[in-house]
Amino acid sequence: MERRYDSRPIGVFDSGVGGLTVFKAVARRFPDENLVYLGDTARVPYGSKSPRTVERYTLQVGAFLQRRGVKGIVVACNTASALGLDALRARVPLPILGVIQPGCRMAVATTRLGRVGVIGTRSTMASGAYPQTLSLLDPGIYTVCAPCPLFVPLVEEGWIVHPATRLIVAESLASLHTENIDTLILGCTHYPLLRQIIQEVMGPNVHLIDSAAAVARELEKNLSSDMLPAPPGQTRILDFWVTDVADRFQDVARLFLEELPVASVNTVDL
Amino acid sequence: MERRYDSRPIGVFDSGVGGLTVFKAVARRFPDENLVYLGDTARVPYGSKSPRTVERYTLQVGAFLQRRGVKGIVVACNTASALGLDALRARVPLPILGVIQPGCRMAVATTRLGRVGVIGTRSTMASGAYPQTLSLLDPGIYTVCAPCPLFVPLVEEGWIVHPATRLIVAESLASLHTENIDTLILGCTHYPLLRQIIQEVMGPNVHLIDSAAAVARELEKNLSSDMLPAPPGQTRILDFWVTDVADRFQDVARLFLEELPVASVNTVDL
Repeated sequence: MERRYDSRPIGVFDSGVGGLTVFKAVARRFPDENLVYLGDTARVPYGSKSPRTVERYTLQVGAFLQRRGVKGIVVACNTASALGLDALRARVPLPILGVIQPGCRMAVATTRLGRVGVIGTRSTMASGAYPQTLSLLDPGIYTVCAPCPLFVPLVEEGWIVHPATRLIVAESLASLHTENIDTLILGCTHYPLLRQIIQEVMGPNVHLIDSAAAVARELEKNLSSDMLPAPPGQTRILDFWVTDVADRFQDVARLFLEELPVASVNTVDL
Repeated sequence: MERRYDSRPIGVFDSGVGGLTVFKAVARRFPDENLVYLGDTARVPYGSKSPRTVERYTLQVGAFLQRRGVKGIVVACNTASALGLDALRARVPLPILGVIQPGCRMAVATTRLGRVGVIGTRSTMASGAYPQTLSLLDPGIYTVCAPCPLFVPLVEEGWIVHPATRLIVAESLASLHTENIDTLILGCTHYPLLRQIIQEVMGPNVHLIDSAAAVARELEKNLSSDMLPAPPGQTRILDFWVTDVADRFQDVARLFLEELPVASVNTVDL
């Protein structure tokens, strides 16, 4: 008899808390799926580190999620998606979904002028993953990138609405203004929290792309092709893991995840 | 015959590049000493991480420096000094010097009003190490602390002179203004790079304490008590190690260290 369901969890991983935006989108779209979240909070941030180090950390997290018995992995971190996805796919024989491909697909479907901006961490921008993916999807797309390394600490420290934040956002995005883009990919899970200031700085004619929704949509395709869905109606488990102690994470997770239950958060050394 | 010299190197360690200010002060004061620097750049920053994680990382770095055959260790990172020093001393049977004690001694010698401010990372401030050390040195000292978690990313990203930096510094130090302090300890190796703005914000009557010089002075006492000095006139070796790849570190190190030679930088996984 053909198996039709698979109750093993889907793993979602990020360098820290930012990936909870992706986790929330996935959890809401798939209310029957068991999910495991791993935030590598002991080694956050990834975005200022080298390709070799990000790849090494990504493989360690992948091995941990395999030990947790996942049926597939969503790499919610843009930097890990840019620098660790190929190595992870080579090592882990499971369906693996990054955030870059879904965000780029959504940008290509959105832009009318064919001119797309991308902002992200230094390492994500230096990888060239976004321009490469965009031009594979549509060779006619013009892409311009701007690293915004201060956005993550500003968000992590809660400076979401502040004149200093506005100054830093304006200066970080200055190089994009003369490029006549109509679509801007928020290429880091933290950036949607600065969406309002970014929108004000870029003006109302630039469409902002947040990949969380795009990832959840892409995962739906995976669940009908590469993975089997969870049996409908099961009481699902949301399983949270971090690499640094969990106190602050638990508070932040409750804030991020709204109605979703965060029963407990476990710690693991990777 | 009594041994009078010890050519083994002194180890200096920091979470990243900031400790190079301490390294420079030590290297200049002791021109014959061999030195090993370890920057834990793959896991930087420590200042937002938990006591348990900072202690674990500190012990791993200590074990590495032991393998390099050091005769003593300078913990140049304030967060590691605040959270990892006791564990390191319990594990490693070598003279170990942190940055907190020397900085506090200098502050106690400097203050006339007995009112001292301390700024540092979130984890350093939360540890209570500075107020404890100050009140052990002089129970009459009044101490007030302010975490400044955005200063490290601003320095790392080179936003040293910028209106946004000025706004952030002013707001981060606001709670110190009503406290009538006359001495302010820069309790993080990155902060001396913001010295000018901090001085302007605090006004000319507040004396800023940078622990790099204080550490070098304290080390001199150690070298005449707990450690033997290097044989005079030897051609010394400066040995640099990082945990993430070395390209950017090498450039920054050359900038920080001025006349001191940075021949090569090696990478190690901890």
